[in-house]
Amino acid sequence: MSDPVALADKLIGGDRRALARAITLVESRHADHRADAIALLDAIMPSTGKAMRVGISGAPGAGKSTLLEALGVAAAEAGRDVAVLAVDPSSARSKGSILGDKTRMERLARHPRAFIRPTPSGGALGGVARRTREALLVCEAAGFDSVFVETVGTGQAQTEVADMVDVFVLLVQPGAGDELQGIKRGVMEMADVVAVTKADGELLAAAAHTASDHRTALSLLQPKHRAWRPEVVLCSARTGDGIDDLARTIERCHSILTESGELATQRSQQAVSWFWSELTQELLSRFRQRPDVRAQLSSVERQVAEGVLPPAAAAAALLDG
Amino acid sequence: MSDPVALADKLIGGDRRALARAITLVESRHADHRADAIALLDAIMPSTGKAMRVGISGAPGAGKSTLLEALGVAAAEAGRDVAVLAVDPSSARSKGSILGDKTRMERLARHPRAFIRPTPSGGALGGVARRTREALLVCEAAGFDSVFVETVGTGQAQTEVADMVDVFVLLVQPGAGDELQGIKRGVMEMADVVAVTKADGELLAAAAHTASDHRTALSLLQPKHRAWRPEVVLCSARTGDGIDDLARTIERCHSILTESGELATQRSQQAVSWFWSELTQELLSRFRQRPDVRAQLSSVERQVAEGVLPPAAAAAALLDG
Repeated sequence: MSDPVALADKLIGGDRRALARAITLVESRHADHRADAIALLDAIMPSTGKAMRVGISGAPGAGKSTLLEALGVAAAEAGRDVAVLAVDPSSARSKGSILGDKTRMERLARHPRAFIRPTPSGGALGGVARRTREALLVCEAAGFDSVFVETVGTGQAQTEVADMVDVFVLLVQPGAGDELQGIKRGVMEMADVVAVTKADGELLAAAAHTASDHRTALSLLQPKHRAWRPEVVLCSARTGDGIDDLARTIERCHSILTESGELATQRSQQAVSWFWSELTQELLSRFRQRPDVRAQLSSVERQVAEGVLPPAAAAAALLDG
Repeated sequence: MSDPVALADKLIGGDRRALARAITLVESRHADHRADAIALLDAIMPSTGKAMRVGISGAPGAGKSTLLEALGVAAAEAGRDVAVLAVDPSSARSKGSILGDKTRMERLARHPRAFIRPTPSGGALGGVARRTREALLVCEAAGFDSVFVETVGTGQAQTEVADMVDVFVLLVQPGAGDELQGIKRGVMEMADVVAVTKADGELLAAAAHTASDHRTALSLLQPKHRAWRPEVVLCSARTGDGIDDLARTIERCHSILTESGELATQRSQQAVSWFWSELTQELLSRFRQRPDVRAQLSSVERQVAEGVLPPAAAAAALLDG
């Protein structure tokens, strides 16, 4: 790796190869790259914070990639620079989905104003999205106006993505009547915008029903912000209907939160909670590497699971043993 | 403190004074009581696990104490031994609510088969309910058939209570039309049973509407269990209507989860996650007590909040500084 400060300069200057290298650096799991990554982040810090950070999430089959491509292409054609970071908890095991994303978002991937980057999962320790937050800062320093962070699946990845963006969009597909959407626990409450996808043709009536159910559910929950109440939007990536409406709703949410001051507060809280999470993960990871802990941990954990050893006693024994 | 093993023997033998002393011991914040508390827990471990553990939560004004008293008295009169542990995040500052609880649950408090114990909050570090889990085990060892853990308010206390019980009951009051219930984020998804309180007289129609809204909201969420779908029950502590139905629904949920094997799995997962939480809290607490960390922490945290210092760099500096 070259000098991280020189890399930061190139990145801020708009060099696309520097962008790819900088993201590779922050994502690197080699211990000796970490100091360089931290020096890079330190150098770009004053150039970050200017993008609209949008999280896009939904169950498999909700039409995430298609919708994200439609949103991205529309923004790029309106003259914006758009970055897409995909967090895929499954990608650590199979590279298939990464290739899949690139292929599915073909039009966006070819657009000169767009940049698509699937982030590999960091494994269980440290969370699925530990390095995606840093990749997001790198994209901001490179001058992107909008950064979309996309995630599928697990509740944990969704929580982590919601904790790094300004506006969190939950995609749901039209459900027939009372059919379960299978929305992961806790996710509904993170949503600033719910987009009901595939709202066209025969599914239009079902989509309207789904939208109304979600409005009811959202109305029962305590609002996340003072200045913004979650909105439900119908859209179809196939016909293009509602895509502009969705894009405008996201931007309206972003600007209302900016004006009310809640965006600044939220980002500041996100940074502090990210700091504590880094600290905790690292303390735990160092603790687990202690030879005496490694020797006992799995047996202790099994005894706790079996109800033989009280959890507090188990923790005390490991800490002081 | 006397010998913790002797105290355990008396506790298991049904001595009510030993019960109060054992709970005081596990709740003690004196460092030198901790070893005795752990010895006590170790000694009672084989006598725990037999109670039905029920969490009761809801916003202030939802009628928690009144309903809990009605449920508790009904169970006690049916011959059960009932313990109520109240987790009140506010009680660390004011003792008023503790007294208030005792007064509000006067009939239950006087019942010879009932035991009511407000647990003081453990402060921010370690979570609001760190010691309530242990108080629950103490009640089980003392032979209680049902342990109710009640909590008001904050999302964190509710999550912690949901993580220590078998069945989690969310109380909501009738809302007029679309009026917001102000349910804390993430709580709806923890509910096994939603009880709409105050369902009598003029509020009956509003209560039915609220119940239907909650059925819709619950139907959109991924079920917490395979064998049990959350149920919504109407009840009134004033008229007594629906109290039996609520009690039977809680018991049905408990026995279905027991038969399906999900209860055992859930308890085992709760124990493991409690173990990790104890370990993490203790590692963090020891880290924060390091003189070099204490000297820098607040300044570092402020710089992170202001966006001057990247979170990962801040964590690394403290860990290696």
